[in-house]
Amino acid sequence: MAVVKRIDHVAILVDDLEKTLTFWQDGLGMQMTHLEDVPAEKSIVAFLPVGGSELELVKPTTGDSGLSRYLEKRGPGMHHICLEVDDIEGMLDRLREQGVQLINETPVTGAGGKRYAFVHPKSANGVMVELYELPR
Amino acid sequence: MAVVKRIDHVAILVDDLEKTLTFWQDGLGMQMTHLEDVPAEKSIVAFLPVGGSELELVKPTTGDSGLSRYLEKRGPGMHHICLEVDDIEGMLDRLREQGVQLINETPVTGAGGKRYAFVHPKSANGVMVELYELPR
Repeated sequence: MAVVKRIDHVAILVDDLEKTLTFWQDGLGMQMTHLEDVPAEKSIVAFLPVGGSELELVKPTTGDSGLSRYLEKRGPGMHHICLEVDDIEGMLDRLREQGVQLINETPVTGAGGKRYAFVHPKSANGVMVELYELPR
Repeated sequence: MAVVKRIDHVAILVDDLEKTLTFWQDGLGMQMTHLEDVPAEKSIVAFLPVGGSELELVKPTTGDSGLSRYLEKRGPGMHHICLEVDDIEGMLDRLREQGVQLINETPVTGAGGKRYAFVHPKSANGVMVELYELPR
């Protein structure tokens, strides 16, 4: 049976990346490992590891993406939580059986062979949940 | 120097606890360890461990609390992220030096001797950040 292994990351939507990094780095003492341009999401992402998880600070780079519209509507703040699962197909199958609405019916393959899918917040109490499985 | 050790929990504000538990338990296969009445927060909290962290599903039990007003205004969804730190006084001192606005200027002692303090979302890019230190 497919299981959730851990929180992989919490994604935070930001409007001012420099100011936000000042808080997390100079204030809380966390360290950014790298900054990644993600053209597919029209955003730039700063990665800050914490324990075995990560915070991802996501800044939209254009005004016409889903993320930029979300930012405009809701303001900056937590955007989604990503959970690592051991078997993403098995997990999506079970969610469908439970009547859960999915954004991605089949896993999307991202950087490094990681496969991911989003659950619709309507089915998850307003929380945007990302599921991902590492390549074996 | 005070450091952040890990994500302790992500708190999710819910309006319908039974329905929300169906998603996290029957859908994602996570297990609730216990349900706790928290009169100080006028809420009931369901704890679901995941890896070395936890999800906390928080349901306001009255209509006159800060949490219930937040729920009414923003709807259900992620509410705050709690980070474990090794030295909460040192962390609060450094945050103050950085001009960060705190909700709790000094740590509050909670159940089991855990000491915690909240950072104001205004200073954290819209994210409600809880810091906590376990008793030594």
